[in-house]
Amino acid sequence: MRSPPATRNGGDNRSPSAQPRFHSTVAEHKLRRFNSLILLFRLASFSFSLTSSIFMLTNTRGSDSPHWYHYDTFRFVLAANAIVAVYSLFELGASVWEISRGATLFPEVLQVWFDFGHDQMFAYLLLSASAAGTSMARTLKEMDTCTANNNAFCVQSDIAIVLGYAAFLFLGNDVVLAIPA
Amino acid sequence: MRSPPATRNGGDNRSPSAQPRFHSTVAEHKLRRFNSLILLFRLASFSFSLTSSIFMLTNTRGSDSPHWYHYDTFRFVLAANAIVAVYSLFELGASVWEISRGATLFPEVLQVWFDFGHDQMFAYLLLSASAAGTSMARTLKEMDTCTANNNAFCVQSDIAIVLGYAAFLFLGNDVVLAIPA
Repeated sequence: MRSPPATRNGGDNRSPSAQPRFHSTVAEHKLRRFNSLILLFRLASFSFSLTSSIFMLTNTRGSDSPHWYHYDTFRFVLAANAIVAVYSLFELGASVWEISRGATLFPEVLQVWFDFGHDQMFAYLLLSASAAGTSMARTLKEMDTCTANNNAFCVQSDIAIVLGYAAFLFLGNDVVLAIPA
Repeated sequence: MRSPPATRNGGDNRSPSAQPRFHSTVAEHKLRRFNSLILLFRLASFSFSLTSSIFMLTNTRGSDSPHWYHYDTFRFVLAANAIVAVYSLFELGASVWEISRGATLFPEVLQVWFDFGHDQMFAYLLLSASAAGTSMARTLKEMDTCTANNNAFCVQSDIAIVLGYAAFLFLGNDVVLAIPA
């Protein structure tokens, strides 16, 4: 579904007489709006995954309180969000480049498959980390780890996991927008 | 990426003189191979998700042993696998129909988007259930629930989760094969 209008990278010139200047302008407008939407989604998934990483990373208090790095699952949540933040930052740069220069960073076919493949892979990674994190957070509550003393630890973990889900939602939307057509 | 050869549902008749019978036969062969591959993947995801459901559902022993329905996460694993088994069975039928009748069950555009959307959604569902299940299984081992008495329970849960991952792999491949083009 990437680049739905016909006038990308020079435009459709099979029948120039049948395509007046008016059509081409409309298509360009659509392309610009489409690219802005992708940019917005990249920005959202970057912000959410970065914030999630920071929330998980700083989720450590006094020495008698639990730490995030004691739990494999929470380490997985942090790693997945950090990886997605780095990837989203790269794609954000690629998106800004595309809008400012009017051409993709890599050759277009390669770029479309690169985006689709990586979006899909990282969406799976982030979702599995968030789902595993949710299961862990529920277990901690059932095991009475989240007593009054450690309640802040549990709440902060929950926030990090929810932010991870938010990042996944925007990344998942990018998968659909980036379908190779 | 669905239906890569041009001769689906009657074929490409823009320039009949330029497309000799030989080409059309090659395209038909490719289409048949492609549809058989999809059928194989549907069969695999159906078998794995059904077996996983059965393994989880029968994971209950004497009254002093843990039961799968005591754990929310394991109920989620069972539900996700059962849903995917039902969906895969439906898609298996649709695939057999398409191969035997030479046309899709729904109008082709609708069918392609139906397949892609549902494959994607159920792949996310199954992966999140499997990831949550993995986290739960690890926690049970750390909590010493998997003692000698209950070892069979833990092993059977592990098998159900691994089978869920296998079903996800084949469903995930269907997502790529069903990309609307």
